[in-house]
Amino acid sequence: MGTIAVTDSTAQGPDFSKCGGMLPTIAQDADTGDVLMLAYMNAASYAKTLETGQAVYFSRSRNKLWHKGEESGNVQHVEAIFVDCDADTILLKVKQDGGAACHEGYKSCFFRQVTAAGLETRGERVFDPKKVYGK
Amino acid sequence: MGTIAVTDSTAQGPDFSKCGGMLPTIAQDADTGDVLMLAYMNAASYAKTLETGQAVYFSRSRNKLWHKGEESGNVQHVEAIFVDCDADTILLKVKQDGGAACHEGYKSCFFRQVTAAGLETRGERVFDPKKVYGK
Repeated sequence: MGTIAVTDSTAQGPDFSKCGGMLPTIAQDADTGDVLMLAYMNAASYAKTLETGQAVYFSRSRNKLWHKGEESGNVQHVEAIFVDCDADTILLKVKQDGGAACHEGYKSCFFRQVTAAGLETRGERVFDPKKVYGK
Repeated sequence: MGTIAVTDSTAQGPDFSKCGGMLPTIAQDADTGDVLMLAYMNAASYAKTLETGQAVYFSRSRNKLWHKGEESGNVQHVEAIFVDCDADTILLKVKQDGGAACHEGYKSCFFRQVTAAGLETRGERVFDPKKVYGK
């Protein structure tokens, strides 16, 4: 168990009867407040998150549980979990290992800003995705 | 037009061919970094957001455009728009009028933390929802 003092996924929390059981989940840097990414959780991934203290999402493209960082090593240590007023969105406050949440090597997946000239990249790459994933 | 220098919704940006054209959209306080809420945008609401400089979502429950604050007056002035690596999630940096994004009167919709004892309310109510909506 990590730093969150919740292990019982049947305790009052997210309502997985909504949104087809697949709730959008925001990961926010616990220290800086940066929004790192958005992914999805079902009840099983949420239970696994509570059990391990690390963010476990459900990959809709691969149709299976996705322990964030399982390949890159850049796991997310969950410090706190919040639900929104409808209990159908989850907010995780996390400590991000490796300094980058995005598989493209940026700290945040939201590294591109919409501008009049198109998408402009903000921030620097923390790692080279070819070196981390290109095996 | 508000504070964002983008008016052309055909410019490179979110990919509304994904997620059934309904992209999760995170509103984050531009000053404090607090995550205020998550809602959804379709292409029409995104275009309206660019046009007005204020957050316009698509209400899935009411099945129509939802100009945030249309009832409460608590509009969101959009300062910047980001897209994630897959271009299927939007992040808005906003100035929140009225100091509260949540219809329950809290600054953030994520005002409840998951704890071993159940959901615990964090933060104070900024307004009384009965006074704002109870007409």
